[in-house]
Amino acid sequence: MQRKIILAIADGLGDRPISSLEGKTPLEYAQTPTLDQMANEGSTGIVDILGAGIPVGTDLGHMILFGYGLNDYPGRGPIEASGAGLLLKPGDVAFRANFATVDDNLLVIDRRAGRIREKTAQLASAIHGLRIEDVDILFKEATEHRAVLILRGDHLSDQITDSDPKIIHGPTPYRQVKPIIQEASAEKTARILNKLLLIIHGVLKNHPLNIERAQQGLLPANFLLTRGAGMVPTIPKITDIYGFKGACVAAEGTVLGVTRIAGFTPLTHESLTGNIDTNIEKKAALVLEAIETNDFVAMNFKAPDLMGHDNNPLGKVRAIERFDALMKLILAKLPDHTIIAVTADHSTPCERREHSGDPVPLLLFGPGIRKDTSRAFDESAASQGGLGRIKGYELVNTLYDFMERTKKQGN
Amino acid sequence: MQRKIILAIADGLGDRPISSLEGKTPLEYAQTPTLDQMANEGSTGIVDILGAGIPVGTDLGHMILFGYGLNDYPGRGPIEASGAGLLLKPGDVAFRANFATVDDNLLVIDRRAGRIREKTAQLASAIHGLRIEDVDILFKEATEHRAVLILRGDHLSDQITDSDPKIIHGPTPYRQVKPIIQEASAEKTARILNKLLLIIHGVLKNHPLNIERAQQGLLPANFLLTRGAGMVPTIPKITDIYGFKGACVAAEGTVLGVTRIAGFTPLTHESLTGNIDTNIEKKAALVLEAIETNDFVAMNFKAPDLMGHDNNPLGKVRAIERFDALMKLILAKLPDHTIIAVTADHSTPCERREHSGDPVPLLLFGPGIRKDTSRAFDESAASQGGLGRIKGYELVNTLYDFMERTKKQGN
Repeated sequence: MQRKIILAIADGLGDRPISSLEGKTPLEYAQTPTLDQMANEGSTGIVDILGAGIPVGTDLGHMILFGYGLNDYPGRGPIEASGAGLLLKPGDVAFRANFATVDDNLLVIDRRAGRIREKTAQLASAIHGLRIEDVDILFKEATEHRAVLILRGDHLSDQITDSDPKIIHGPTPYRQVKPIIQEASAEKTARILNKLLLIIHGVLKNHPLNIERAQQGLLPANFLLTRGAGMVPTIPKITDIYGFKGACVAAEGTVLGVTRIAGFTPLTHESLTGNIDTNIEKKAALVLEAIETNDFVAMNFKAPDLMGHDNNPLGKVRAIERFDALMKLILAKLPDHTIIAVTADHSTPCERREHSGDPVPLLLFGPGIRKDTSRAFDESAASQGGLGRIKGYELVNTLYDFMERTKKQGN
Repeated sequence: MQRKIILAIADGLGDRPISSLEGKTPLEYAQTPTLDQMANEGSTGIVDILGAGIPVGTDLGHMILFGYGLNDYPGRGPIEASGAGLLLKPGDVAFRANFATVDDNLLVIDRRAGRIREKTAQLASAIHGLRIEDVDILFKEATEHRAVLILRGDHLSDQITDSDPKIIHGPTPYRQVKPIIQEASAEKTARILNKLLLIIHGVLKNHPLNIERAQQGLLPANFLLTRGAGMVPTIPKITDIYGFKGACVAAEGTVLGVTRIAGFTPLTHESLTGNIDTNIEKKAALVLEAIETNDFVAMNFKAPDLMGHDNNPLGKVRAIERFDALMKLILAKLPDHTIIAVTADHSTPCERREHSGDPVPLLLFGPGIRKDTSRAFDESAASQGGLGRIKGYELVNTLYDFMERTKKQGN
């Protein structure tokens, strides 16, 4: 009997023992009756998403959990562009971009334009549609100060450097974009982008929104910093490779970008905030509705990762308890023949404030899953669970085998 | 001290929880005092024969358990031919074949000639020795309606299509064989095979056995359907690679075919049926006799796989209990310095009625095997055993290292 799969991804879930939590990890410390019950009835293990000790980003982590390999990774730019809803074509070069603030000498004084949040769509529409030489500019705002820039034209390359200086202490020049390889396409792309940055400054510095911001004492969003150039490749859709229907419920652009690339239906709602205050009733409802018409439904719950980046152990505990409540809502109406997999895209230990290469806990629950002796779901229990220690692609193969979408080798 | 190895392969052993067995797997449900005692004194683990979540066939599963990799897999045809006892040469093209029934318009009306079981050797001898152009035809009957066809000659290719239409609803034309690649060798092979199929029809349609069948109201075996073309490659023998003497006790052609390819001595007997009624005393005697003069003796016990394919949980329980009785006979007379490994070539969950990518349980028992805390042998206990979760080739390396046939790397 073919199974359907709900893959619940608690972003950044994995952690390390924390002294303020009695030497426990946030997942060990949190009250998670639903997850513990599922562990009791199912099997647990730990997963090295890419490999032991190798940290991965949210984008690559989700790509692997959807069935891709490292070689399929197109760079952050194309993923953000896809997440922002820009229809990309192979050969486009995509960048992640920040609205930033420069002074009259073009020195960067804030990499995030005072963390601008409002009305960036107005700035984006002033940039979108520009043309430099024979290259068309596509541009779309993303969350807060973030945006996505696309160069579309012939003979472009992603082998160029970032304009973003990344770390600034006081006014700092932005970086001139340079080709990384000695090829006409890389030289052309660097030249176009350097020109474009100045033109965008000209467009933005007298933009009505920035005049308004100046009157309010806010930093103007009068410059663009770019990074993560990526040539948009032809990535086959996972749904085409394996022949199934997939969907992903998420709030965040990065995850939604990977979702679209994989051929899954992106499902979101304005009440899904990508934080601890997200609407878990809506999230559960979207998952349960999607599993009726899809074979595989992923769901991203972002809050544990944010708390890890903020080094907020108790916040991470609260985020995990909310995730447990979300799982309770899903479990209560779980259809027959459906397996739930709970894991993370990577660990985000509070003490590190960044992603780490620590393995993530895994829980499989549902019809056909063998039982082991695990009685709780946390890093410690899962490390001795019956699924053992596997790689991300092995988890995906296992799930796709329960869906009966794998191909028998030999005869 | 070099060990000898007895590798007991319970075909298709691995399963999933089954509600009619109180939520246990057949192996968990079965009474297996011998295996449990061995687990108690030895170590257990779980094995992904090729990789987690990847189903494998019996042929590839056994090839891996004998020490081959996926790239050595020659296709089903050469394995069946080897199993049927045809002495193959590199460059031969081997096919799996069915005796079938066609009507006067050459439309296939039964792909298995009424599941003919008797006297197919008479038909085979009428085909064996034919010659088309410069190509010699080798042919041998296998179990029931099955047979093996070999084309031997210069410039042949396995890049051709099947003549078997696979699925028929009412009278259906057989498929003309076509080259898959545009090469003279493939075109020649397709031409020869298309001619041969018509000639075989001419030979068989008036064969005395078919006249006899017609009088009994049975469908005549008057045609041949071919599939699974495979060029016989030069596969080095495992016994040559590692320098030991091996044997395999089995009833089934596929397993015996792999056995011959690996350079092991095939050992069988008419009372070994490949089913639950197999003669376990004879099987144990053959194993114990073979281990006196061989370093490595494999043994296949087919019944659990058949019960899995039939979705017969209680039948699988009985098959496993019979396997336990067989192991008791072997254990009672186990020579010194001999390790027993118990595992499976793949899982065949009853509910799936097919091979799955679920890992298989593993048990190592004998002098030099480290003890773990496992007290029983089943999927659940083994998933938390001291051998951990390993791949098929890692198990083989472990066994061959106990035989001291591995090569130290470095110095």
